Amino acid sequence: MALIVQKFGGTSVGNTDRIKNVAARVAKCRAKGDQVVVVVSAMSGVTDNLIKLAKEIMPLPNEREMDMLLATGEQTTIALAAIALHALDIPAVSLTGAQAGIVTDGVHTKAKIANISPKEVHKFLDAGNVVIVAGFQGQTAEGQITTLGRGGSDLTAIALASALRADLCQIYTDVDGVYTADPRLVPNARKLDEISYDEMLELAGLGAKVMQSRSVEFAKKFGVIFEVRSSLNDNPGTIVKEETANMESVVIRGVSLDRNQAKITLAQVPDQPGVAARIFKAIGEAAINVDMIVQTASHGTSGATDISFTLDKPDLLKARKVLAATQLDAGFKEVIAAENICKLSIVGVGMRSHTGVAARMFESLAQVGVNIDMISTSEIKISVVIDLAKGEQAVKAVHTAFLG
Amino acid sequence: MALIVQKFGGTSVGNTDRIKNVAARVAKCRAKGDQVVVVVSAMSGVTDNLIKLAKEIMPLPNEREMDMLLATGEQTTIALAAIALHALDIPAVSLTGAQAGIVTDGVHTKAKIANISPKEVHKFLDAGNVVIVAGFQGQTAEGQITTLGRGGSDLTAIALASALRADLCQIYTDVDGVYTADPRLVPNARKLDEISYDEMLELAGLGAKVMQSRSVEFAKKFGVIFEVRSSLNDNPGTIVKEETANMESVVIRGVSLDRNQAKITLAQVPDQPGVAARIFKAIGEAAINVDMIVQTASHGTSGATDISFTLDKPDLLKARKVLAATQLDAGFKEVIAAENICKLSIVGVGMRSHTGVAARMFESLAQVGVNIDMISTSEIKISVVIDLAKGEQAVKAVHTAFLG
Repeated sequence: MALIVQKFGGTSVGNTDRIKNVAARVAKCRAKGDQVVVVVSAMSGVTDNLIKLAKEIMPLPNEREMDMLLATGEQTTIALAAIALHALDIPAVSLTGAQAGIVTDGVHTKAKIANISPKEVHKFLDAGNVVIVAGFQGQTAEGQITTLGRGGSDLTAIALASALRADLCQIYTDVDGVYTADPRLVPNARKLDEISYDEMLELAGLGAKVMQSRSVEFAKKFGVIFEVRSSLNDNPGTIVKEETANMESVVIRGVSLDRNQAKITLAQVPDQPGVAARIFKAIGEAAINVDMIVQTASHGTSGATDISFTLDKPDLLKARKVLAATQLDAGFKEVIAAENICKLSIVGVGMRSHTGVAARMFESLAQVGVNIDMISTSEIKISVVIDLAKGEQAVKAVHTAFLG
Repeated sequence: MALIVQKFGGTSVGNTDRIKNVAARVAKCRAKGDQVVVVVSAMSGVTDNLIKLAKEIMPLPNEREMDMLLATGEQTTIALAAIALHALDIPAVSLTGAQAGIVTDGVHTKAKIANISPKEVHKFLDAGNVVIVAGFQGQTAEGQITTLGRGGSDLTAIALASALRADLCQIYTDVDGVYTADPRLVPNARKLDEISYDEMLELAGLGAKVMQSRSVEFAKKFGVIFEVRSSLNDNPGTIVKEETANMESVVIRGVSLDRNQAKITLAQVPDQPGVAARIFKAIGEAAINVDMIVQTASHGTSGATDISFTLDKPDLLKARKVLAATQLDAGFKEVIAAENICKLSIVGVGMRSHTGVAARMFESLAQVGVNIDMISTSEIKISVVIDLAKGEQAVKAVHTAFLG
């Protein structure tokens, strides 16, 4: 008898018919004799509606009260899901995050899980129930209701799987798993059978929107093996786990394309200590997330350099304002912004033990006439900035070069 | 500095504008320097919607899960009400029933309050907050969420007022208070300044739908003085409290008319011990609420009697089925049902010390040609069953006779 944690997101529980489908899927799993803990999100649209109500009253509502408000979303789903299991004659009990023993810190709307005491979960499992836990929520040691922020239900599932020492944690979503590339861009992209935490993290950070980095990091930290799979069919998904020696035989796990990037170049930045720090401090204080940063070598005797960096496209206007305010102090000549770029990345732990990966990537790009604007590398990732118009062609070429 | 508990029902918090109105009213009270605890219901329509969702899944959903589901209704309102107070710069904190320390028995969907440990309420009050408590809900000693059933939010307010030793408990509703008669029937009906618990109980049981008997009984048991008043204006309401000597100077507090009654007469019931018991046991087991029961004296030598009783009109069909199944065993001849009746009652603690009250009532009815079909009396109430078509005329006549 295995213990399985299954998580279903807002779309999978978006109406009562879909909740019945989830129940049928849980029932099938339980028919094999396994114990099942189900984690569910709020029905899609519910959280947005609650936020809208609060903002009708006040533009910036208090965060403790927002947690009190939003926690009702998941609480509604767990009760309905339990009823849907009862309708199939399966004993089931719902638990709020608090009741499931999920204790968090007191940072409302983005609380961190401090510990889990799953006494109640065990009690109801041992009595033969499917236990349905509200995702995204917990309570502080003092009994205040908290929520975990974006991706919080995935985190609940993975943290519960860890605390319960579950045999398997399944994250059900609307895609079949993690792919070697976005199948809409690369028709011969393949679903991966497995991927390492680090690869998954790089892909999550690269705009492959399967899961929030935070949940993957938590899984990595506590060694929780999980599977990302579809709630719409019975296909096996992608197993996310600790890197194995075997994984290194594959050079590249996947190729990703992020078309939501923009580039800013600061021309003739004085090549003096502290200037770059001043610039990026101002950018950071405006909560603008900078990704790649490239600085050219100093221009001969001019004592000046060019600095380029990428950022999320929606932050471009805000960044220009910040830079305008910094220009006099930092002493650079000009701000050149470009929106027509994209970022292409290859990810794979196999890079560590294979040489010539970068060369092979650049070559495959050159063959289809794609010019490389910026380059950035990490141990298991190579990213390049290229022309937005060439993005789709480029991702196909790189995918063919490495993944066929 | 007084401590005031204010309760607002579903209509008073039916949308965000109304919630803002509630906040403004609470703010006014607090501006006088008083501490305020607010109890709110679910926004009108919300509970019905949740019930509809559950019934889409299963006709008879599990009661524990219904409590889990319905408790979200009040939780939504408390958060929004706290935010509405914040918008007026008033510190406010919301608490679920569980957080407010409302401990109940484990009878889901109609739990009874076992005790209240208002530690958290005191803590947040002492820190200068308005405390907003979810009505209608609590939790068992084992941490299961429960709801209190119909009228539960009134009960929460009165029980909290008792536990907190509040100086005043105000039940805000859509009427100005308790009237001497239904103003839609009797244009010169007057709002009462005060009424005793017992009188209020008799009126509640008689279809004057201001409050459920249960909350009044609780208030009586624990001596909680409360005021029923309108959330739409600033008029003083009706104070409900223990009977005082002064109250007896008024003979009749109010007149009520219940047009939702039907009458069944069982003809020629064998006049033997146990027959009536058998009949009313069957009726009771079908959860049919019987009000007045009248048995005529035995018909001479026939050894048979007639039994008449009143019941809620919607139960009539069910009652006929039960009686049909009992007829052979109980041995009565015939079931005669009448829907065209109504019940007129006068209520007042002053009846105890005033004589001739019944005679004066019957006389006032006779004067307008109303025939009396059944009579039933208690210490502080006289009820008569009359022709439905004469109901309105009769209630006016009796009101004029006693209350002008």
